[in-house]
Amino acid sequence: MTDIPELARQIAEGNRRALARAVTLIESTRPDHRKQAIALMEALRRATPREALRIGLSGTPGVGKSTFIESFGMMLTGQGLRIAVLAVDPSSARSGGSILGDKTRMERLTREPGVFIRPSPSASALGGVARRTREAIALCEAAGFDVIIVETVGVGQSETMVAEMTDIFLLLLAPAGGDELQGVKRGIMEIADLIVVNKADGPLHETARRTCADYAGALRLLRKRPQDPEGYPKALMVSAVEETGLEEVWTEIGTLAEWRRDKGHWAEARAGQAERWFEAEVRAGLLAQLERSPDLKARMAELGAEVAAKRRSPEAAAQEMLDCLGVARS
Amino acid sequence: MTDIPELARQIAEGNRRALARAVTLIESTRPDHRKQAIALMEALRRATPREALRIGLSGTPGVGKSTFIESFGMMLTGQGLRIAVLAVDPSSARSGGSILGDKTRMERLTREPGVFIRPSPSASALGGVARRTREAIALCEAAGFDVIIVETVGVGQSETMVAEMTDIFLLLLAPAGGDELQGVKRGIMEIADLIVVNKADGPLHETARRTCADYAGALRLLRKRPQDPEGYPKALMVSAVEETGLEEVWTEIGTLAEWRRDKGHWAEARAGQAERWFEAEVRAGLLAQLERSPDLKARMAELGAEVAAKRRSPEAAAQEMLDCLGVARS
Repeated sequence: MTDIPELARQIAEGNRRALARAVTLIESTRPDHRKQAIALMEALRRATPREALRIGLSGTPGVGKSTFIESFGMMLTGQGLRIAVLAVDPSSARSGGSILGDKTRMERLTREPGVFIRPSPSASALGGVARRTREAIALCEAAGFDVIIVETVGVGQSETMVAEMTDIFLLLLAPAGGDELQGVKRGIMEIADLIVVNKADGPLHETARRTCADYAGALRLLRKRPQDPEGYPKALMVSAVEETGLEEVWTEIGTLAEWRRDKGHWAEARAGQAERWFEAEVRAGLLAQLERSPDLKARMAELGAEVAAKRRSPEAAAQEMLDCLGVARS
Repeated sequence: MTDIPELARQIAEGNRRALARAVTLIESTRPDHRKQAIALMEALRRATPREALRIGLSGTPGVGKSTFIESFGMMLTGQGLRIAVLAVDPSSARSGGSILGDKTRMERLTREPGVFIRPSPSASALGGVARRTREAIALCEAAGFDVIIVETVGVGQSETMVAEMTDIFLLLLAPAGGDELQGVKRGIMEIADLIVVNKADGPLHETARRTCADYAGALRLLRKRPQDPEGYPKALMVSAVEETGLEEVWTEIGTLAEWRRDKGHWAEARAGQAERWFEAEVRAGLLAQLERSPDLKARMAELGAEVAAKRRSPEAAAQEMLDCLGVARS
């Protein structure tokens, strides 16, 4: 049995081992663990920590996300900042393995004392990727990290989910020909705050420059968003390997963050995120009823079998199940 | 007030005007219409009509879906078959207009006496695209159509949704270079039963032949699915404009359908679809509670505002809302 008040105290002191244990706790699907996790979240919420800067980072495999996070993270730790890195991998729940799970990816960063790196959890924690990540972010914030980087691969709805939990969203891209510009998933341009073209080094430098110009041009065609000052979103060029352009990225993040704080967009965005999170939790709680009670699960299975055997229509069976749940239905 | 038993009787007789009125009824979101729609579905279910062949058809805009459906449909009506065409357009709910809504697209087919064409409904019927389409399919089946073609554009999750409601799924493609092969959305190859390369005419004929061969090669790399005989899924070549290759498509559909019926996959698939539909209806009914009661809606808004104002955490507010709904929560 975990001593929750003690764990909360240790986290608030910035103890990374306690933080790691807490993240494991929130990833667990065991009902007793879940109860403890909720108690822990509640204990930490009362401590009302300082807000961290939450950065979302997306990019397809091979674009250099790990190298970028390592170089960028090392630059930040060099400035005395404490960094947490979390990974969201929507494929891990399905495949059982995680493409972001390799902890050895960021060797230098892992050894830094002010850094916490948490790879994507494995399949055990089915469902609730969003809840788990959101809670891990809150834990890192409670532990006093200055910057929390939430990394995701560009598949499915994971970018939208990560953007919904972060303050600034970076899209990392590789240098590529003009055709590639169309290959960027529709909608991603709308949620990116900064587009960062990586690998601006060696023989790819010129291609990176052109790619960056192409994106800058494309960004100018988008309508200015209320949360941006004039001239944003911007496209930038970096080399994670040669560690160039990283300070510019950090400066731009700072400029954006400051402008949004001044104009009230920051608080507004966080308030909106919290509200939508509340609504999602209510919906999840409603649906979870079906999973929790063995009686309801058995009734679902029975009715499902009757429907499959054509003894009942899906609609009539659903009506009966909803009656059983005490839900009036249109 | 609609006379539901009379409407059901007219539909069962194959009256297309009655069918059109019924589809309008199920598309309505007015609660009194919804009640009538449920009564109608129930009345028709008791009539237990013969199973129609349900064909799903997907393809990106410009690939020639309308022309294909017109040519293919004309061939089928020539064989004395009665055809219904339904369109699923996921963008219509958002944009208010429908890219599949142009009824004048299939001029010849529209004039055929044994044909029912229903364009995608407009934004009025928000939410429940799946329910609406599934009910429209059931209505067409009750009206005795032999073949029901459900058309969708290749965006979002609409293909998966349509595949989940149909017996045979066709993917229509345009002739294109080898690069394009990668452009096909991941996962779509897994749900397609037949890949049909259109525009195999005039200057594009050779490109179509190569494209078809490319896809045939790619299909051979996929693992054989239990529901397929050896050698399937297949890639075929047609010209909707010149009306070539259409009979081959029909023959292949027939071969697949017969094999699946013989081996029990057909009944199994329909049973699975019905069961998943039941589960989706239960989930939708649970979530619909929040929309239906003005009291609950008001409470949601109040709690949402408290969360946005940081007076309450999303989790605590959700707990309170769920208590209010009488739901125990993990």
